Amino acid sequence: MPYVNIRVTNEGVTSAQKLELIEGVTDLLTRVLSKDPATTFVIIDEVETDNWGLNRESITTRRRCPKAAV
Amino acid sequence: MPYVNIRVTNEGVTSAQKLELIEGVTDLLTRVLSKDPATTFVIIDEVETDNWGLNRESITTRRRCPKAAV
Amino acid sequence: MPYVNIRVTNEGVTSAQKLELIEGVTDLLTRVLSKDPATTFVIIDEVETDNWGLNRESITTRRRCPKAAV
Amino acid sequence: MPYVNIRVTNEGVTSAQKLELIEGVTDLLTRVLSKDPATTFVIIDEVETDNWGLNRESITTRRRCPKAAV
Amino acid sequence: MPYVNIRVTNEGVTSAQKLELIEGVTDLLTRVLSKDPATTFVIIDEVETDNWGLNRESITTRRRCPKAAV
Amino acid sequence: MPYVNIRVTNEGVTSAQKLELIEGVTDLLTRVLSKDPATTFVIIDEVETDNWGLNRESITTRRRCPKAAV
Repeated sequence: MPYVNIRVTNEGVTSAQKLELIEGVTDLLTRVLSKDPATTFVIIDEVETDNWGLNRESITTRRRCPKAAV
Repeated sequence: MPYVNIRVTNEGVTSAQKLELIEGVTDLLTRVLSKDPATTFVIIDEVETDNWGLNRESITTRRRCPKAAV
Repeated sequence: MPYVNIRVTNEGVTSAQKLELIEGVTDLLTRVLSKDPATTFVIIDEVETDNWGLNRESITTRRRCPKAAV
Repeated sequence: MPYVNIRVTNEGVTSAQKLELIEGVTDLLTRVLSKDPATTFVIIDEVETDNWGLNRESITTRRRCPKAAV
Repeated sequence: MPYVNIRVTNEGVTSAQKLELIEGVTDLLTRVLSKDPATTFVIIDEVETDNWGLNRESITTRRRCPKAAV
Repeated sequence: MPYVNIRVTNEGVTSAQKLELIEGVTDLLTRVLSKDPATTFVIIDEVETDNWGLNRESITTRRRCPKAAV
């Protein structure tokens, strides 16, 4: 019955990667808290880089200077 | 002044259905908690089926086996 | 498989009222979108009145002038 | 380390306005709570007007009667 | 720069378990999406069992019938 | 009609500081997007330091080494 919301920037996360995240988070909750996968929700939100701010900048801007790994 | 967030998969919810949800939730909060509709927010998020996981699967996958009504 | 989050101020919502909200929202999603109650989450957050702002005021302050029904 | 989520209707917010919101919120949290901008997240969600309800109406409907400034 | 919100019922999750969840989710995002742990937020919300509804019941009620593993 | 959710750690934010955040965010949305304060929600969540993870650590742990300003 856990609800997990993963928010990342909208930068090409593949279906396979989404499934890996869904499986990984569900397994983690089963292992650590014995939660039932049948009622474990995992929801992935993909946010435009203009719409995500860090250190007073948008990620669109940060992406232009390669050193800023986020 | 309630804030209600309804998250469902992005599978063709019509404008009329959205309005039914908005009216239904607002009326419920007025009836149960005497909340003022004029400051009751209802926000509907529609999530891609790839992005919603249940029981270690994405809803895209679950939709392929008809018995899985969710 | 819907996820519904209801946020209201922490002002004495009873267990019975919470159950009415849970039942009401679940029934609404079944009626309007044919969603399965067995995988419908309803989560109620109760927020302190100091922590909820409307019209540049906290609800604590607004509660002191009776006309402000929210 | 604050996380701030701003939800507004999807009605043409420009990149420049988004940056103003990111900078404004980050500066506010630095000034009021001495938070470090380098770990301050600001995420802006743009919601379709059909998907946002207020006073039992969708914002799409409210926009049709000009007096309803929201 | 991911933001992950884990919502579970407030039923005695220990500090050690919370740390396991924080480490597990952060490692998963590093492995799958090469995200930087230094800007990966994991926030755990613990929700009262009266405030969490599933299948038209509160978890408080469901806990009284042992078969309902959630 | 904006909804703004500010999540910070539960480390003694005063009522006066909360009001400053409410006023500051509301004024920012009025200035940048001409939003009406009368329908602008600002909700502040205070999260226990055990429940907030950054860089694979809880904030409880990070607080023990003073350089980690977050």
